[in-house]
Amino acid sequence: MTQFSIHARFDGPIVILGFGSIGRGIIPLIERHLEFNKNLLTVVAPTGNDFGLLKSMGLAYIEVSLTRENYRDVLKPPLFAGGKQGLIINLAVNVSSLDIMRFAKEIGCLYIDTAIELWPDFYDNPDRAVQERTDYSLRESVLALERQSPGGPTIVTCCGANPGFVSWLVKEALLKLADDTGQNTVVPESASDWAHLAQRLGVKGIHIAERDTQRSAAGRKLGTFVNTWSVEAFVTETFRPAELGWGTHEKQLPRDARRHDLGCDASIYLLRAGGKTRVRSWTPMAGPQQGFLITHNESTSIADYFTLRKAGKVIYRPTCLFAYRPCDEAVLSLYDMYDAKCPERSNWHVLNEDEIVDGADELGVLIYGHSKNAFWYGSRLSIQDTRKLVPFQNATTLQVTSAVLAGVIWMIENPTSGIVDTDRMDFRRCLDIQRPYLGRIIGQYTNWTPVDDRNLYVPEELDRSDPWQFSNMIVR
Amino acid sequence: MTQFSIHARFDGPIVILGFGSIGRGIIPLIERHLEFNKNLLTVVAPTGNDFGLLKSMGLAYIEVSLTRENYRDVLKPPLFAGGKQGLIINLAVNVSSLDIMRFAKEIGCLYIDTAIELWPDFYDNPDRAVQERTDYSLRESVLALERQSPGGPTIVTCCGANPGFVSWLVKEALLKLADDTGQNTVVPESASDWAHLAQRLGVKGIHIAERDTQRSAAGRKLGTFVNTWSVEAFVTETFRPAELGWGTHEKQLPRDARRHDLGCDASIYLLRAGGKTRVRSWTPMAGPQQGFLITHNESTSIADYFTLRKAGKVIYRPTCLFAYRPCDEAVLSLYDMYDAKCPERSNWHVLNEDEIVDGADELGVLIYGHSKNAFWYGSRLSIQDTRKLVPFQNATTLQVTSAVLAGVIWMIENPTSGIVDTDRMDFRRCLDIQRPYLGRIIGQYTNWTPVDDRNLYVPEELDRSDPWQFSNMIVR
Repeated sequence: MTQFSIHARFDGPIVILGFGSIGRGIIPLIERHLEFNKNLLTVVAPTGNDFGLLKSMGLAYIEVSLTRENYRDVLKPPLFAGGKQGLIINLAVNVSSLDIMRFAKEIGCLYIDTAIELWPDFYDNPDRAVQERTDYSLRESVLALERQSPGGPTIVTCCGANPGFVSWLVKEALLKLADDTGQNTVVPESASDWAHLAQRLGVKGIHIAERDTQRSAAGRKLGTFVNTWSVEAFVTETFRPAELGWGTHEKQLPRDARRHDLGCDASIYLLRAGGKTRVRSWTPMAGPQQGFLITHNESTSIADYFTLRKAGKVIYRPTCLFAYRPCDEAVLSLYDMYDAKCPERSNWHVLNEDEIVDGADELGVLIYGHSKNAFWYGSRLSIQDTRKLVPFQNATTLQVTSAVLAGVIWMIENPTSGIVDTDRMDFRRCLDIQRPYLGRIIGQYTNWTPVDDRNLYVPEELDRSDPWQFSNMIVR
Repeated sequence: MTQFSIHARFDGPIVILGFGSIGRGIIPLIERHLEFNKNLLTVVAPTGNDFGLLKSMGLAYIEVSLTRENYRDVLKPPLFAGGKQGLIINLAVNVSSLDIMRFAKEIGCLYIDTAIELWPDFYDNPDRAVQERTDYSLRESVLALERQSPGGPTIVTCCGANPGFVSWLVKEALLKLADDTGQNTVVPESASDWAHLAQRLGVKGIHIAERDTQRSAAGRKLGTFVNTWSVEAFVTETFRPAELGWGTHEKQLPRDARRHDLGCDASIYLLRAGGKTRVRSWTPMAGPQQGFLITHNESTSIADYFTLRKAGKVIYRPTCLFAYRPCDEAVLSLYDMYDAKCPERSNWHVLNEDEIVDGADELGVLIYGHSKNAFWYGSRLSIQDTRKLVPFQNATTLQVTSAVLAGVIWMIENPTSGIVDTDRMDFRRCLDIQRPYLGRIIGQYTNWTPVDDRNLYVPEELDRSDPWQFSNMIVR
């Protein structure tokens, strides 16, 4: 049997919210790499999940849907067991991250999640302005909570594959790029040092560029929605407005773009659903590809982190966006989702590791606009490798759970940091923990730009003087 | 063994151009339903086709790519054999329909095709205006040939599933709709009688609404282009501008629309590739779905045929468009075709009847805007039924070849009609010939309109006062 490194020890209670594809996958990773008291681990998840695994492992669970009304009563007993500081791993959908964060701060508990979630009936509430439904606004609400009551127990926000892992990749990629372009660089420490490095390298922007080629033997049936991770979470984000961090090199706001009145102003949103908006991008496996411009926390957080100001004025910021090419069955599911009409929940299906016959998830950052044009850096994780590495997971979920693992370890090692996102965590420590689970780490330069192979049939307006303008990327 | 009806007899030479999926399929149908001299049948097709079938059947073939320079020399010997009037079935791509039509007229030969094709290097010639590359312009060139030298041997243009078969369906559907709405109607004869009927029924428009659910066991491999019929023909039409017949009820031209300076003016084109343009539509199998607004001859020809004028002014015309949801593997192939960069020919693949595991092609006409809202009428042909009916064909190709068969028979029965399209042929005779090969004929009313399930997440401008405006159909 392989001997796994124990990275840290945690004596208090651990409560995991949610038991979907990520919840199922995180438990074996924690068991391998964290010394903890199994009797103090509790999963809280609604009816409908498969709790058989937990029973067979002898782990406690509470079968309940968390609501605004019940979450304190449900969570207090397991979190106060043992009398030591607790740790919440929030992997649930439809549970307000902000409320649980507040609660964690109040009871002095550590907390980590992979996305900022809300109580249900938020996104589809017609009384909410489009702007309120942006990821930008959700992120601002978390920043506001930190301003209101700074410090305290560490609360890690948005620490999955992306948002999360990709923020660490950006930093490692920038150091490689500096190295490959002959720049001697000490590893930056502060956000502004990092931004200075990106500026010096001439980076215009960053795509979170993902290609998922995993596929099932059975194929997708008419009327179903199939994905390699949560259908519910994916569908919700495809409905929301497309958003992207808005770089200083961009010449013109898109015609359907809006800026925010409040907050950091690092990103813009478009008056179009992300699942109906495509952008030209590139990954090593696919070459040129079109991905969905899905709203994601990292599009704003990375753009914000790498912003330079002089006398209050923004003088440098990279564009940052998520260009996501999901697995084939998800593309078809999305294609067939008639406007906002998603199939019934009973027709949702997340492909598990046994159903997937082949394919890989290639998730990385495409850093572009510099002297070597563009550099993709990231993880190519095949389903075959995933099966060898861990139980209960496909390639997509392992990229998430390994990031959660890294976040949990880092949080235990840094327990009094207040609210932090992954841009402000130690990227080297986190990547070291995660690396055994990432398959092949690939760094590849490409000469591709978004104006390649254009204008062949129907004339398009292109800015060939600057191929890396967003106006050249978006598919109109 | 089933006894097949012999519909007609033809003593002269028959020359089939092209031996792709349609060419392979038409031969057994002709053998079943036409009395002809096998020794006078010749297939002309380029190297790369599988001629084994012809060899095993003892049929003659000429292995050559037809060009502007060689077509007369190649076609004369087989067409002049036997000393009787010949018949050309043009199923080739990249062979100019107009040149072959002229040649047929000149030598007094019958002729039929399924689309207006051109010599290669036309569509991707950057010197050609977008307008020249429209189906509208191709159709006008055929109309001009008929005006130049009217009459003569029958030349049937655009007689496949669509364009072709669907024009016959429109008429049968209108009669059913008249019947179901309690209107006593004599079957109209002239185009203007038909247009009067459509107007009286309150028809605002017609979708050629198709859903193909056929799928292979193997699934599509990365970097391939897979379809249930010619990849080459499909890819070419997806690159061309979206076009549609433009009805008199439409309130506003789309912002990217252009009208034509010359010709019948029945349709408009959009400055966007059809393969990047989607419209909301409906079929019984799928319910609401989005299809590609692919340019097709019937979008203009049907709109033109049903146009009413008063003192030279157009007073009635239905909108007419092709809303095509190809098979899953074709949707993915199209999704992954980076801008105009199609995979190499060696990575093209047409799914044959043995590879397809299940699914059906549902091809019909959705007639909308009348007192019963919308009526879909058409053929649902499964791969299982197709295999029982004919050899060498899938559901998609059989809908085409059975229409070609009907056209060939009608042409032999009406040999001196000059150039005609399917709107001007005897729809009852043609459908009677075709019906045994159409699977289930379905007529279904629906309450669906294109404004259903809209505006849930990102606000859209909708015209709810008239749900059947094109502005409500197009996906923006």
